Amino acid sequence: MATLTYLTTTHFDFGAVQQVPAELRRAGISKPFVATDEGVRTAGLVERVTDALGRNVPTSLFDGTPGNPTEAAVLKAFDQYVSDGCDGVLAVGGGSSMDLGKAVALLAGSGGPLAQFDPLAGGGKLVKSVAPLIAVPTTAGTGSEVSVGFVIIMEDGRKLTFASPLFVPKAAICDPDLTLGLPRAMTAATGMDAITHCIEAFLAPTVNPPADGVALDGLWRGWNYLPVAVRDGEDRAARWNMMMCSTEGALSFIKGLGAVHALSHAAGRIERLNLHHGTLNAVFLPAVLRFNAPECVEKYDRLGQAMGLAPGTDIAEAVSAMNADIGLPSGLHAMGLQEEDIPDLIAYAKKDLSALTNPRSAAEDDFEAMIRASL
Amino acid sequence: MATLTYLTTTHFDFGAVQQVPAELRRAGISKPFVATDEGVRTAGLVERVTDALGRNVPTSLFDGTPGNPTEAAVLKAFDQYVSDGCDGVLAVGGGSSMDLGKAVALLAGSGGPLAQFDPLAGGGKLVKSVAPLIAVPTTAGTGSEVSVGFVIIMEDGRKLTFASPLFVPKAAICDPDLTLGLPRAMTAATGMDAITHCIEAFLAPTVNPPADGVALDGLWRGWNYLPVAVRDGEDRAARWNMMMCSTEGALSFIKGLGAVHALSHAAGRIERLNLHHGTLNAVFLPAVLRFNAPECVEKYDRLGQAMGLAPGTDIAEAVSAMNADIGLPSGLHAMGLQEEDIPDLIAYAKKDLSALTNPRSAAEDDFEAMIRASL
Repeated sequence: MATLTYLTTTHFDFGAVQQVPAELRRAGISKPFVATDEGVRTAGLVERVTDALGRNVPTSLFDGTPGNPTEAAVLKAFDQYVSDGCDGVLAVGGGSSMDLGKAVALLAGSGGPLAQFDPLAGGGKLVKSVAPLIAVPTTAGTGSEVSVGFVIIMEDGRKLTFASPLFVPKAAICDPDLTLGLPRAMTAATGMDAITHCIEAFLAPTVNPPADGVALDGLWRGWNYLPVAVRDGEDRAARWNMMMCSTEGALSFIKGLGAVHALSHAAGRIERLNLHHGTLNAVFLPAVLRFNAPECVEKYDRLGQAMGLAPGTDIAEAVSAMNADIGLPSGLHAMGLQEEDIPDLIAYAKKDLSALTNPRSAAEDDFEAMIRASL
Repeated sequence: MATLTYLTTTHFDFGAVQQVPAELRRAGISKPFVATDEGVRTAGLVERVTDALGRNVPTSLFDGTPGNPTEAAVLKAFDQYVSDGCDGVLAVGGGSSMDLGKAVALLAGSGGPLAQFDPLAGGGKLVKSVAPLIAVPTTAGTGSEVSVGFVIIMEDGRKLTFASPLFVPKAAICDPDLTLGLPRAMTAATGMDAITHCIEAFLAPTVNPPADGVALDGLWRGWNYLPVAVRDGEDRAARWNMMMCSTEGALSFIKGLGAVHALSHAAGRIERLNLHHGTLNAVFLPAVLRFNAPECVEKYDRLGQAMGLAPGTDIAEAVSAMNADIGLPSGLHAMGLQEEDIPDLIAYAKKDLSALTNPRSAAEDDFEAMIRASL
């Protein structure tokens, strides 16, 4: 039985930050906890959002979000949320800030410890309520502003995906203006994150045709506009369409994701490397597409159409060529991954939530082969 | 500014009618007013739904829905709703029954007269509340089970489209089982209704890329499976996909529709003919596609891809060929429309809500040309 539910209110356009005050009011937030990171703050983006609030809204600013948000950072943020008497979250940043913000909102609404909410251990049922959250993305990749999930590296080293309809922000404010200054490398890496979401969501075997359609539309935009956005970060049409690709990717991954994300979550938790999630997705994507191919013949035709490829083009090859074109690393070795990291990667990928919705069931051997093909 | 909002919970699969009792409970309906028509009742479909309710749920059955629902029928139904002490609507049928049910739910929640809610006259603001409604479609065409709108022929002869987010049913129960026995002609006509929704919604200039994606996915399904469903009504995959096309069409026409619907609404109100809405859409679609072509070059490429047409194929021609293949009338003359009906048609089409979102602005002359090309 397919049960289709769609999602949250999204204000989407240049200038959308002007909607933040109205959405805070609608969500009943009088003192927002602003979850962000130092880079976003020093780039002046937090100010652009808080300026829109005017002088009458007190805020509590937290710019300590790490590149991959950790449970320790979440707890530190939550302490500040409580001691500053906040009544909701305003997340401003990329996936890390939004995910940290979601974790804080969960602790504020349902109490800790965070680990109890692990959906693979049935923790979804323990999510009683979540403090209201408004999300303002400053990258075009994660789509966390409309998604049911967030990802945190736990104290015990696991990179856990939490998911519940209650984690969908009360409103998403998508203002491509905030991405105009995004550096080239970050544009490329986050863009491939969004594209991977569209591809993996479309391939997930869950029955949700509307989400399939959203995924293909997002892919069509992302594939056309990512090279443009990387070449010229000031191209407004490219920034608009990349942000839409990101939002659509996350709207569609309500279906689940696949082995690319299982592997990226596994590799993203290696503390020594602190690897970027989008870059990892880009690097794993070709090998996973080759592994999944036998199960996805008709779907690969539709992917190729959305990407504007000539019939019969190898889509894994096309992704590798895109990675090279936009300057992403050629493989895991170039990112610092060592032979001795592999067993750990396999063990974690196998247990990741995203592995459950890969279109082809992957055993340990399969994960190893995909990793080695991505070195 | 694009503000994207998605929609209602939809249970979708063979056997979905089993979800009706739970959804009635969730909606707080203890005595449903069952809005249906005589054909649906005599086909045994109402029984299939009410059987699922068990013995403990009293119902009030109204099978007096006309082929094109009228204000008079709505008022008669509402009288019965009140005198039987109903507290919500269970609509079982095609677009007519669902739309009549929506009108009754509106009167129950916000009072009459119905005409005050005309959105073209600012009536949307007067919609204060709407009684809960669960929709169970028995055709695959209208998509009213997930849509924000409904259409009623008013006492003064206008065919009015009412629209509000509050008109979206609390839940849609889409069970393709209920369409297995649908006669060939009705399968063809309702199927082209769904396909027209996907096409016109995609072409509407409103900015809503997720809805564009949903429209193209629906079109892909509808175009592939309509000929199969018409040839063999027992083909379960075809029935499933046609119902999904119908649902996706209505999910996407939150963007608005276009000149096809403006013309069909105008022609559908000619009392003497009592023409079928889906058939009218099918007959008007080729001429409207030709009229819109100059404004839609890139979009027609994407439509053609979704329809599986070779690049450069004339999509208006392809629609005419589909109409012929599935046995629909070749034009308006064959449906009984006379020369003297034309001025009236033009006058009404021009003022129809759907005309506002046609991708190319149409003057009186343009409407006349489209009508004459569809004779």
